[in-house]
Amino acid sequence: MQVFNEIGPLRQFLRHIRSQQQTIGFVPTMGAIHEGHLNLVRAAKTQNQVVVASIYVNPAQFNNLSDLEKYPRTLEKDISLFTAAGCDVLFYPDNQEMYGEPSKIKFDFGSLDKILEGVFRPGHFSGVALVVSKLFNIVTPDRAYFGQKDFQQFKIISQLVDELKFDLQLICIPTTREPDGLAMSSRNLRLNADDRKKALVLVQSLRYANDEIRKKTDFKKIRTEIQKRCTDLNVKLEYFELADRKNLSLLDTVKDNDQAILLMAAYAGEVRLIDNVFVE
Amino acid sequence: MQVFNEIGPLRQFLRHIRSQQQTIGFVPTMGAIHEGHLNLVRAAKTQNQVVVASIYVNPAQFNNLSDLEKYPRTLEKDISLFTAAGCDVLFYPDNQEMYGEPSKIKFDFGSLDKILEGVFRPGHFSGVALVVSKLFNIVTPDRAYFGQKDFQQFKIISQLVDELKFDLQLICIPTTREPDGLAMSSRNLRLNADDRKKALVLVQSLRYANDEIRKKTDFKKIRTEIQKRCTDLNVKLEYFELADRKNLSLLDTVKDNDQAILLMAAYAGEVRLIDNVFVE
Repeated sequence: MQVFNEIGPLRQFLRHIRSQQQTIGFVPTMGAIHEGHLNLVRAAKTQNQVVVASIYVNPAQFNNLSDLEKYPRTLEKDISLFTAAGCDVLFYPDNQEMYGEPSKIKFDFGSLDKILEGVFRPGHFSGVALVVSKLFNIVTPDRAYFGQKDFQQFKIISQLVDELKFDLQLICIPTTREPDGLAMSSRNLRLNADDRKKALVLVQSLRYANDEIRKKTDFKKIRTEIQKRCTDLNVKLEYFELADRKNLSLLDTVKDNDQAILLMAAYAGEVRLIDNVFVE
Repeated sequence: MQVFNEIGPLRQFLRHIRSQQQTIGFVPTMGAIHEGHLNLVRAAKTQNQVVVASIYVNPAQFNNLSDLEKYPRTLEKDISLFTAAGCDVLFYPDNQEMYGEPSKIKFDFGSLDKILEGVFRPGHFSGVALVVSKLFNIVTPDRAYFGQKDFQQFKIISQLVDELKFDLQLICIPTTREPDGLAMSSRNLRLNADDRKKALVLVQSLRYANDEIRKKTDFKKIRTEIQKRCTDLNVKLEYFELADRKNLSLLDTVKDNDQAILLMAAYAGEVRLIDNVFVE
């Protein structure tokens, strides 16, 4: 795997790739690579000749400085994992390379960035849109791969690609889970043994709610039960919502032809986790 | 000159151009082509193998519906002028092709979009940034050409290219003027004979101010004189400002090593005009 720290040499390399009519699959990450990331690389590998991953912990998308400082960084292990998964190129820039002058541009997505994560992480999606725009313009991939765990992020980036006419295809890959169901996340590295157990409340709540929705149980009643479970476990719940998968507008109930999704954010100890499942 | 109305065929054509290692110069316009636009095409022609122009009256950058409706449209003449100037490709899309679904993304540029034009045209630069992002991602030029008359727009687009890492060079071409000094503008087509005379107050005020600044006359005194001239002519002045050419921060006075610019917006009759000169 070739590693580039600078935009210029990476662009030169990728221009050569494209001049040979090879397609480029792109997997942007913030490092602390786990099986979820590697599944994105593997998917990219099946659909493209060359796979580029990036590792960049983007300050602009952290609304909480302590979260930024504590974000896990495991570069050497990341490089061996990416290499073993068949990744061809790693882009690993520093802040000077990605930002230079302090950033002034902010993005607003109308309603999509004001709900769910947007309520609890002001500015987060503007930072995501900024760094993803930079990365797309640097890598100019044919396809870019994102995990379903960050489903609202996927919708934001879909809006960005659609409106700014980026010439690429976005692909959403199902969330990779631990054997007990916990959604894989770089932040899981920060969980102690006790919080690791508590963290299961996310996937268990989502699966419970999915079952109850199938039984036509009222969604408010389901949410009350989940709030109670979180309180009993001393887990701080930020949101538990039912939404339309298309545009994430919040729902009170699932009609027959709705494509719905359940989304949840909660703290296991000091670690904020998110997860979601499609309502089947 | 080849004319494309749709993004797909244009992209296919330009991919072929790039696969032959040819460079692309891009001149985005809103039509009603005049010598100012043609000078951009000529400049692009000297620096690139292929010149692409676009004509698209972008609704998102009009804060005033009547201004949008009255914006001059002269397509057949535009095509012959571009052809004669050696333009190779014209992209002439409709609203459906450029927007599809209603737009939700807004851009904020910090201070740069809150001054000068930003005060009088709320939302204008967000609309400019949106359409320019679309066009850059569709045309993917090596170089893009803009006129100095819209200098604040040029600074906004510079910020956009810098922060979003568009892989292209921006080039600002000096304003083309009529023999009597009036800055060329598509909106000049809307001036009646009386307003055409009044419109000269812009270039004359800017040149007068430039001379007075050289004589170290206080800028507030200069502005008062210009306000008086506008009032005498029954010309509505929106702003007359001195600014730093680098970031457009407003100045009260020019120091020896300042790179300054004078900028003005005023109505000749019902037609809003802007102009600027670099302080020499």
